Amino acid sequence: MKVKINDNFDNLAENYLFSDINKKIAKYKEKNKNADIIKLGIGDVTLPLGKSVVDALIKASNEMASKDTFRGYPLEYGYDFMKEALIKYYKRFNVNLDLESIFISDGAKSDLGNIVDIFGDNEIYIPNPVYPVYLDSNLMAGRNINYIVGNEENNFLPLPTKDIKEGSIIYLCSPNNPTGSAYSYEDLKKWIDFAIKNESLIIYDSAYEAFIDNDLCPHSVYEIENAKKCAIEISSFSKQAGFTGLRCGWTIIPLELISNSHSINKLWKRRQATKFNGVSYPVQRAAEAAISDMGILECKNNIKYYMENALMLSKLFDEKNIYYSGGKSSPYIWFKCPNNMSSWDFFDYLLENANVVGTPGVGFGIHGEGYFRITSFNTYEKTKEAIERLKKVL
Amino acid sequence: MKVKINDNFDNLAENYLFSDINKKIAKYKEKNKNADIIKLGIGDVTLPLGKSVVDALIKASNEMASKDTFRGYPLEYGYDFMKEALIKYYKRFNVNLDLESIFISDGAKSDLGNIVDIFGDNEIYIPNPVYPVYLDSNLMAGRNINYIVGNEENNFLPLPTKDIKEGSIIYLCSPNNPTGSAYSYEDLKKWIDFAIKNESLIIYDSAYEAFIDNDLCPHSVYEIENAKKCAIEISSFSKQAGFTGLRCGWTIIPLELISNSHSINKLWKRRQATKFNGVSYPVQRAAEAAISDMGILECKNNIKYYMENALMLSKLFDEKNIYYSGGKSSPYIWFKCPNNMSSWDFFDYLLENANVVGTPGVGFGIHGEGYFRITSFNTYEKTKEAIERLKKVL
Repeated sequence: MKVKINDNFDNLAENYLFSDINKKIAKYKEKNKNADIIKLGIGDVTLPLGKSVVDALIKASNEMASKDTFRGYPLEYGYDFMKEALIKYYKRFNVNLDLESIFISDGAKSDLGNIVDIFGDNEIYIPNPVYPVYLDSNLMAGRNINYIVGNEENNFLPLPTKDIKEGSIIYLCSPNNPTGSAYSYEDLKKWIDFAIKNESLIIYDSAYEAFIDNDLCPHSVYEIENAKKCAIEISSFSKQAGFTGLRCGWTIIPLELISNSHSINKLWKRRQATKFNGVSYPVQRAAEAAISDMGILECKNNIKYYMENALMLSKLFDEKNIYYSGGKSSPYIWFKCPNNMSSWDFFDYLLENANVVGTPGVGFGIHGEGYFRITSFNTYEKTKEAIERLKKVL
Repeated sequence: MKVKINDNFDNLAENYLFSDINKKIAKYKEKNKNADIIKLGIGDVTLPLGKSVVDALIKASNEMASKDTFRGYPLEYGYDFMKEALIKYYKRFNVNLDLESIFISDGAKSDLGNIVDIFGDNEIYIPNPVYPVYLDSNLMAGRNINYIVGNEENNFLPLPTKDIKEGSIIYLCSPNNPTGSAYSYEDLKKWIDFAIKNESLIIYDSAYEAFIDNDLCPHSVYEIENAKKCAIEISSFSKQAGFTGLRCGWTIIPLELISNSHSINKLWKRRQATKFNGVSYPVQRAAEAAISDMGILECKNNIKYYMENALMLSKLFDEKNIYYSGGKSSPYIWFKCPNNMSSWDFFDYLLENANVVGTPGVGFGIHGEGYFRITSFNTYEKTKEAIERLKKVL
C-alpha cells in the first residue's frame, strides 16, 4: 500500500522495559530452577474488589437482563449518578465541581493519551522520570518535548523554572509514578501561580491521590486557588479502588479553562462525542459504590494493607541510610542504587543475590538512571521476607 | 491561557441532529399534551441482554471479589479467551484469523475514531450519507475529505470511481448506517480489487453484520480474496448482542497490511499500548458468552424480533410503492420522502399528522437530503400501530 503513516511513530523508542525484565527473570530461573523469586516490581493492585463494589456490579448486571431496567448507550460523558458521586467525593477536599466539568472515562491512561487531540503544536513540559504515557502520546502528535528534571535535590518534585515558554502544556503527577513523591500545597501553589502568569496549562494526574496520608499534600489540584483557570485533572479508580481490571476513571475540565477564546471543556466534549461512547453501565455503578461511604471504608482497608508494606520498606531504607522518596502517601518506593550502580546493574545484583525483582528507574526516563522502584503491592508475608533478604545485600 | 488548540475543530459542524429532533418533539407536546408519539427514530437496541451474557457477567464479577481469582490490568489488546472466541466466530464465515491481528475494544466508535492517529496526511474517501464518525474524526485530524455519493441509482451502495487517488483511505460501512444497504460479494470484490490496484486502504465497518440474512452478502470483508492485504475491519457487539450499554467491540488489522514498509498492525499495537488499557474483564467474559453457541442463539432471537418489525415496515413501503433501501439485512429503513419533501419538512409532517418520529436523512450528510430513516428497535406493538398511522398519511 501507499497510504501515508504517521511518521511521528518513528520517533518513539520501543518500550522493552517489562519484557526485558521478564526475559532476565526467565534466564535466571533457567539456571536456578529452585529460586524463590519475590516480585517487588508489581505495578498493579492485588487485593480483590470490595463487597460494595461487587454488589453494585452484580445488581447492575441483573438490571441489564430485564427489559424494564435494561440500559443501552451510556451518556458519552458519564451518567449523572456517577458524576454526582464524584461531586460528593470532591467535597471531602473542599472542592466544588459541577456536572458539566466532569467526564467519566475508561481509565486515566485513555484520557491522558487522548487529550493531545484537542491541542495544537505547543511546547510540552514533562517531568523526568515519570509515567511514560505523557511523553509517548505527545511524540505521536509530533510535539516538541522538554524535560522538567526530578532529582535528589528537589526530592523528585521539580518546581517551575524561568525557561518554560509562555503558552505551554505542563504535565504533573502527584503522588508521582514512579518516585512516590507528592507535592505539598505550598509547592503546588507555585506551579499554579506560575501557570496563570505564564498563560500555560497544567495537566494534573492524580491517579494515586487516595494514598495521600499527609495533611500537607492536596488530593486534588483544585484545592489550590485559581487552579480551575489553568489545570485539567485526570484521575482513576484503578489504584484507589482496585479498578485496574474494571476500567473507570474521570477527567475534570473546568468551564473556566479558556484558551485563545476556545472553551477547553467544549473541545473535549466534541472529541469524546466523536471518538468515545461512554463507560459500561455496570462499571459506572461499581465506581459509584466505590466512593460511597461504605465503599471508601473498604477501599481504605486495602490501601492500609499496601501502606503497611510501604512503611516496612521505608524503614529498611531509613536504617540503611539510603536515599529514597515515596513510601509515604504512595505505594512506590524510589531509591538510589547503592555504590553508584546503574539501574540495570542493580537489577541484576538484586535478582542474583536476593532473588528480589524490582523496576530499573532508567525505564521511566533518563533522569531515573541510578535509581530503582519497588512497590508495596505484594503480600505482607512476601514483602517481609523480601526485606530480610534486602537487609543482607544492601 | 495562550495554549494553542487544535484549529481543525473549527471546521467541524456542530451536530444538533438529535437535540433538534428532541426540541421539536417537546414543542409539539407542549401544544398537544395528549399526543401519543411513537418513536421510530431509535438508534439503540431495546431488548435486554441474553441469559448467557448476564450469567457470564455475574460470574466474572464474582471472580473479582476473591483474591485467588481477582484480575488486575487486562491485556491491552484483549484476553486470549476473547480473541479465541472471535477466531471461532469468524470460522462461521470461513475466515481464518490469528490472535495477533485481533484487538478487543470498548466499542467500534472508539476504534473508528482513534484509528486516524496512526496515519499521515492522506486523501480520505467517505460515503455520503453515512455514520458521522468517519467524517468528524478525519476533520479533527485536518485531512482532506472526499465524498463517495450514495443515491437511488446505486441503491446507496457506491462503487469505486476513477477519481479516487492512489494511496487513499476509503471508508465502507455494510450493512450501512443509515441506509440499511449491504454490499454483495460481487460488489465488495470490486472495492477490494480496486484498493489493491490503487494501493489504498479500506476501513470496513461491519457493526451490523449480524443482521445479514442474505447469502449474497458477506459478513466480513475478509470473505473477499486479498482483503487482508488492503482492509481493516472494525466491528462491535453493540447491535448484534445488545452491548450498547456494556461497551465491547473489536478491530482486525491483518499482519499482511504493510504500507510504505510499516506494519499497520504494529502501529496500532503501539497506539493502543500508549493510549488504551484494555476492556473490562467482566465485559470481555460477557462478550465471549455472546458468541458462544448458546449466546448466538439468544442474540439471534433478539435480532429476529427486530427484523420482524423491519419486515412489517418494508411491506408498507412496498405497498405504497415508495423507494426504500434496507429493511432486509439491517434494522434500518431508509426511504424517499413523498412529494419531494425535504428531510426536515417530512419530519414535521410526520410528527404533526401521524405522531410518528424518525430521523431526517440530511442529518447523515448532504446526499441524505430528501430521505428519512426509521428503525425497527421499537416494540412489535408500537411498530404495528405506527404502520397503521403511516398508511394514512403516506
